[in-house]
Amino acid sequence: VTETTHQRVSDLGESGLIDRILERIGPGQVEVVAGGDDTAFVPLDASSVLFTTDALVEGVDFDFAYCMAPDVGWKAVAVNASDIAAMCGKPLWATVSLGLTPATPVATIDGIVEGMVEASARWDIGLVGGDITTASELSLSVAMIGSLVGDAPVLRRGARVGDALLVTGSLGGAAAGLRLLQHREAAIERAEDHPSGRAAGSGDVAHGLMKRQLRPEARVEEAAVLAAFGPSSMIDLSDGLAMDLRRLMGASATGCLVEPSALPLDPGLDPLFEYEPGGGLELAMVGGEDFELLFTLEQGAVAAATHAVEECGTACTRIGTVVEGECSVGDKPLSAWEGLGWDHLRSR
Amino acid sequence: VTETTHQRVSDLGESGLIDRILERIGPGQVEVVAGGDDTAFVPLDASSVLFTTDALVEGVDFDFAYCMAPDVGWKAVAVNASDIAAMCGKPLWATVSLGLTPATPVATIDGIVEGMVEASARWDIGLVGGDITTASELSLSVAMIGSLVGDAPVLRRGARVGDALLVTGSLGGAAAGLRLLQHREAAIERAEDHPSGRAAGSGDVAHGLMKRQLRPEARVEEAAVLAAFGPSSMIDLSDGLAMDLRRLMGASATGCLVEPSALPLDPGLDPLFEYEPGGGLELAMVGGEDFELLFTLEQGAVAAATHAVEECGTACTRIGTVVEGECSVGDKPLSAWEGLGWDHLRSR
Repeated sequence: VTETTHQRVSDLGESGLIDRILERIGPGQVEVVAGGDDTAFVPLDASSVLFTTDALVEGVDFDFAYCMAPDVGWKAVAVNASDIAAMCGKPLWATVSLGLTPATPVATIDGIVEGMVEASARWDIGLVGGDITTASELSLSVAMIGSLVGDAPVLRRGARVGDALLVTGSLGGAAAGLRLLQHREAAIERAEDHPSGRAAGSGDVAHGLMKRQLRPEARVEEAAVLAAFGPSSMIDLSDGLAMDLRRLMGASATGCLVEPSALPLDPGLDPLFEYEPGGGLELAMVGGEDFELLFTLEQGAVAAATHAVEECGTACTRIGTVVEGECSVGDKPLSAWEGLGWDHLRSR
Repeated sequence: VTETTHQRVSDLGESGLIDRILERIGPGQVEVVAGGDDTAFVPLDASSVLFTTDALVEGVDFDFAYCMAPDVGWKAVAVNASDIAAMCGKPLWATVSLGLTPATPVATIDGIVEGMVEASARWDIGLVGGDITTASELSLSVAMIGSLVGDAPVLRRGARVGDALLVTGSLGGAAAGLRLLQHREAAIERAEDHPSGRAAGSGDVAHGLMKRQLRPEARVEEAAVLAAFGPSSMIDLSDGLAMDLRRLMGASATGCLVEPSALPLDPGLDPLFEYEPGGGLELAMVGGEDFELLFTLEQGAVAAATHAVEECGTACTRIGTVVEGECSVGDKPLSAWEGLGWDHLRSR
């Protein structure tokens, strides 16, 4: 409602925008040179480091038709934190490269920064640098460094035949949330003719699912706790259980036997799919963006590790066993879901 | 001339493209997990780290009308290496976030990767991770980490009254090269009517200037050598001497007196500007992208530091003195060039 609401980034210019962003991020810790110099200088007492990058692009990875600017900022940090967690690492520092159109409202940038600051506070990550460039669409490319919690990173390769296969939290919620958000928009459009359409996508259950999509949690505490139990392999679920399970087992050159009834489907899926039996399983298998940890562990460590993760307030479920040969989910081969995952470059 | 020439990234899909890129980058060093896991794991024996990011966007930072794909890959690495060098740091590891349109030719990606690999080899940087997303234009966002050469980073703030002001290499060449490249295109278009127009932009001098624009050198060795002499402040020249001098002196809360006749203009500017006296100075002041180091040093260390940089095969020139108060270039205040630098967000 202030003048800011109508400002475009072209009104501020690059240095004005950078000053504004730095103000919102707040002062850095002592010893940290962050923002306003050529590169950030951060403490990091280690003999090795985890280093990752992941970008979000408007219209591909998010859409302002159904999300707010702070959601986008949060998610850009969360997806990188999740990648660090998936190595049994602790995220520490992040930079962001912003692609902006000159017409981008300043209020949008403020919102994105607000969400990045919130997510950074959530996992105690320092935002220490960035870059702004003009582009024809809005994008955020975050890079993040982290340290190991244990003595060695937990890789995708490393699962051994006989290990238990486990997953944190629940599955399918983020993809269901996306459907609701997209559907709600459609419902709101239809509501111009039929006011009762506004009811679509309301209620606590729907809200919980939409939150899984808009404000994903990175399993940082859970990864730190798991390090003590020495998982033999681990990955975060960004592209759906089917594709990420294939990656994990493929890297380990093993197969697996997943018990479909053991899969911890998000309880919000039940009311959503009462008209479509099996729809929840489909979302868990190919929906993506749950950002849960999928990992393998010696059988003997399962009970204690499960208990430790539950102490974080997060479920931890054994969903199967590592075997020789192929991957299967119940009596279906994993390949039944092949090609259903998200490949944003492939022509459709 | 192979089938590849006509392939689009949409023909390969994301995993096919990643495999292709990893193949071209080659195997990582021992102990490094690079590509194919959730995040890179790299050795880094230090109590602190330098961390930066910088992006290039098609149509803003480069244009295939006048540059080749390997030039783009080279430059994306070089500009980040230059930011690390400007802190008296040594670049070590890089990730790249690629924004691609589905119609991007695979040959273009191959070329970009080739240029990134060349630049990484040039400065001994490990390419250890990345991310690919769909976008409506081609972009490369590189993030880089590095280590300090000395005991502390050299910041922008730190110049002291009485210090000498120095610059490595030569000025204005990159901007002149850009003009030649853009002009050459125009000349080639005109050449359809006037074949003699093809001569524009030819010759060794022109080639040297265009190379400054297309294949910038990051002053990594020079920064390492300078660390021993304890520069009081330093910045790399990305946006022209006027803007970067204002940043350096502004951060240090000092002024400076620059002797215009001392400025090491690129010798290629002379023939280019014989018809436009002072044009070379203008390019040096506001042209940008020279990626030379601008730094301040105690008077007593100037001779030895200059000699040490020259041992790297790079010129090193004292261009002025740090003073109290304002910045001036000869009898003109630095503000005379204000607003002429590059601000890609500001409306024109």
